[in-house]
Amino acid sequence: WGDHPKRRFVVNDWGSYEFTVSPLAIRKFEQKFGYCMKSEDFVNAGLYNNSYKVPSPQYRDWIDFINEFVTAFGHRCVDLIHARGKKAFVFYNDHWIGLEPWGDRFKDIGLDGIIDGVFSGFETRKVAGTKDVKVRELRLHPYLFPTGVNGAPSFLEGGNPTLECKTYWIDIRRALLREPVDRIGFGGYLHLVCNHPDFVDYIQRLAQEFRMLRSLHDGDLPYTADLKVAILTAWGQLRAWGCCGHFNRGNYYNEVMESVSGLPVHVSFISFEDILQGGIPADTSVIINAGTVDDAWSGGECWANPRIIEAISEFVNGGGGFIGVGEPSALRHGSQYFQLAHLLGVDREIGLTRAFNRFQFDIAVKPHFVLRDLQSEPDFGVEVGNTYVLDEETQVLKARGRSPIITTRDFGRGRTVYLSGHKYTPDNVRLLHRAIFFAARAEEQFGAWLPTNPNTEAAYYPRHGKLVISNSTPDPQATEVMVPGGASVHVELEAYGSEIVEFNRAV
Amino acid sequence: WGDHPKRRFVVNDWGSYEFTVSPLAIRKFEQKFGYCMKSEDFVNAGLYNNSYKVPSPQYRDWIDFINEFVTAFGHRCVDLIHARGKKAFVFYNDHWIGLEPWGDRFKDIGLDGIIDGVFSGFETRKVAGTKDVKVRELRLHPYLFPTGVNGAPSFLEGGNPTLECKTYWIDIRRALLREPVDRIGFGGYLHLVCNHPDFVDYIQRLAQEFRMLRSLHDGDLPYTADLKVAILTAWGQLRAWGCCGHFNRGNYYNEVMESVSGLPVHVSFISFEDILQGGIPADTSVIINAGTVDDAWSGGECWANPRIIEAISEFVNGGGGFIGVGEPSALRHGSQYFQLAHLLGVDREIGLTRAFNRFQFDIAVKPHFVLRDLQSEPDFGVEVGNTYVLDEETQVLKARGRSPIITTRDFGRGRTVYLSGHKYTPDNVRLLHRAIFFAARAEEQFGAWLPTNPNTEAAYYPRHGKLVISNSTPDPQATEVMVPGGASVHVELEAYGSEIVEFNRAV
Repeated sequence: WGDHPKRRFVVNDWGSYEFTVSPLAIRKFEQKFGYCMKSEDFVNAGLYNNSYKVPSPQYRDWIDFINEFVTAFGHRCVDLIHARGKKAFVFYNDHWIGLEPWGDRFKDIGLDGIIDGVFSGFETRKVAGTKDVKVRELRLHPYLFPTGVNGAPSFLEGGNPTLECKTYWIDIRRALLREPVDRIGFGGYLHLVCNHPDFVDYIQRLAQEFRMLRSLHDGDLPYTADLKVAILTAWGQLRAWGCCGHFNRGNYYNEVMESVSGLPVHVSFISFEDILQGGIPADTSVIINAGTVDDAWSGGECWANPRIIEAISEFVNGGGGFIGVGEPSALRHGSQYFQLAHLLGVDREIGLTRAFNRFQFDIAVKPHFVLRDLQSEPDFGVEVGNTYVLDEETQVLKARGRSPIITTRDFGRGRTVYLSGHKYTPDNVRLLHRAIFFAARAEEQFGAWLPTNPNTEAAYYPRHGKLVISNSTPDPQATEVMVPGGASVHVELEAYGSEIVEFNRAV
Repeated sequence: WGDHPKRRFVVNDWGSYEFTVSPLAIRKFEQKFGYCMKSEDFVNAGLYNNSYKVPSPQYRDWIDFINEFVTAFGHRCVDLIHARGKKAFVFYNDHWIGLEPWGDRFKDIGLDGIIDGVFSGFETRKVAGTKDVKVRELRLHPYLFPTGVNGAPSFLEGGNPTLECKTYWIDIRRALLREPVDRIGFGGYLHLVCNHPDFVDYIQRLAQEFRMLRSLHDGDLPYTADLKVAILTAWGQLRAWGCCGHFNRGNYYNEVMESVSGLPVHVSFISFEDILQGGIPADTSVIINAGTVDDAWSGGECWANPRIIEAISEFVNGGGGFIGVGEPSALRHGSQYFQLAHLLGVDREIGLTRAFNRFQFDIAVKPHFVLRDLQSEPDFGVEVGNTYVLDEETQVLKARGRSPIITTRDFGRGRTVYLSGHKYTPDNVRLLHRAIFFAARAEEQFGAWLPTNPNTEAAYYPRHGKLVISNSTPDPQATEVMVPGGASVHVELEAYGSEIVEFNRAV
């Protein structure tokens, strides 16, 4: 369409409201909110209001305004469809602004179902967790297009659609073990699969596996530790299990969210506004804050509010856990860069205080609960670097040169963990899994239904008495799975495979 | 002194005026400047006014105030010394606040000499360039202490004071080839050298080499291209060839300054204030800006001033050169992070616009002048990462993954070069050397007295007809040196060695 071939896309953000601006909308907005949106409210010095930006109060109002309009207008459309005896589905993918499926008004539209084309676990949870629709559908990849939507030569010479599908499926599967969807599908040109009988065979097996997984959730819930993780961002629930599109590799928040999407813990998404309005929910065990300075995921300017610092400090002091990843609570504000440095015991040198000498830490020599399953030295992909510890009360578990990369610290009755980065890998999933239980002071709950081999994961459905063990790697794996009470079962898994172990009676 | 053994020093900054604050000084300051300094002017949200901070107008006033006092009081002290027939020297090292040897008032103190304990080239230039004293002395390292001031076990078991001294000397020597000092010395306990006869022998040879180098400057100046480099920082001349103490490894500004300290170019240090007051000096060929966001070396908030952007854009448009290293001109301000992104053609993603797709550059395949002497892939130590190019007018010479690390771009009649980091190594010295000549559009001047082997450097003294070639590596080296006119001379150098080639008549 005339774009430069080296830059076909300019902005790729599914949650950006830039396209909803019109003179009429601006006038109607002013009638409702009593003030007029200015160009700069949208342009934002050229950064616009993409999902990585902390939303301004004005932008939140605008989202609310458009959401109200789309809900009312969408409801009228759905009514017309229903009046003709048809069902109304929506594609929760490239652009769904105004719908806000995780918002309060979504139920008022009256949609029958929601469909999303997904590659990963966090997207699966986004669909699975959407309330108030009868049908949640995943559209799998590769699309039946010659070239995949991510540029892979899926059905072209050199493509391997079966392997491609498998690599997405293993990530989707671990999320489906936690929370089900109602159906799966494909989109595109069916004739493309003719020359790929292995793909057709694989999809048949995948569909059987999907139906089996879905059936496990019938009248049952997977065993989940009594442990609630709250992921704290500037967006909170409105962008739960969302980023700005598909998996944004290298983004700490997205990598953490992907890892968490398959863990046996309860997960919620909270915003700074939630904390200001109602405090930290009483059932929260561990808060995770992951991101880079100034972005919506770490929270940016929200960290300048002392009431936030007080609330989280009080929470941890009272026994709560806090896990910071990358640049948690980072803001150029006051004498701490990490505004929660007093909890984490770690801060980051950003170049203004290089003249300050830093505490010369030693690496903890005693084996630590958090590190126990690491198969090699930690690899977080990009680490933030230039971290330092405040004093000897920070326990440094791993460091890169003079920068600590895994630390823990007690604060009052609570615990904090700092990770200088995160990348979705089996080792790091297990590390984060352990960090969550450690921060929650719930180590004794950790062993239940845990596979000893971190390349495998397990989910137990107590009413069915069924244990699913899955292998997220391209190699065969063997593992023991710890059964509560002290026993264990041995399981052999083929590459990308899963197995079910049945227990005669619910354990 | 009761400090924690793991953190013996809290702040190590030789140029910080925190220790000059007293109630009397604050009252006298108010009498002179008409306003009262507040605690926060000094505390600065816990960052204090260390050298890495962009100095506030108030802090500049305070420096001026203390400098005036120290100059007057120092002058009285020096007069007393002179009245007794003695000479007055000052140690330009750990803490010299108030003296400001590169400031305008220094001459008024009337000191006879200045002494500095140095490890490196930039420190040597700091001493060599100090005006208005008769004697400039370098105190060499290792100090004759059991343990060196940098913690090396110099004269203890396991120490190697000779090798240590050599490694410092090669960096000092290349600076001395550009600008001489008057004498060298050592400090400490003389008996420590008794058991190190090799050290005594080496120092004898070093002293001979020093005297020879000094003599070359008698009535002569080393050949220098007609090319003036201005290093732009928030401090300018006041902190010329200074950082916050000895070599701060990893700091882009300090690494660049060290590399430049031995290059055959004219160097000056300018501040943003200089540009606002008098424009960019007319004889400037290339401006270098090196640092990280918000620090005094890159310039921080100074980049918010549109008059600075205009002045530099006009300078480059008119044929000037600009080299940016690390995060040049970086500031969270407007739609560019590098405020000179329009000149460099490069900017950096800091996490707020990840939804923006970036131009997919190709690496230039044609050999480029700037890269010609690279012996291996560039190693800048820590690179800033997440850089991107604006469009195809930026020529990407090297990249790390999808981040360009060496680029050039034409802007009007001028040229810019971007380097995503810098580390003082022979390869990088040569790269910067070439980048300067390229940015200055002075490639044809580059070859004069240039050694073909980048592990060696050369300085030619035309009146003496002497060419000094030095080897900054621990291995023997051989090189050709290009003599203007087309000839070349072959030179063999021992490890860390230097050789002199005499020409019968001045070339």
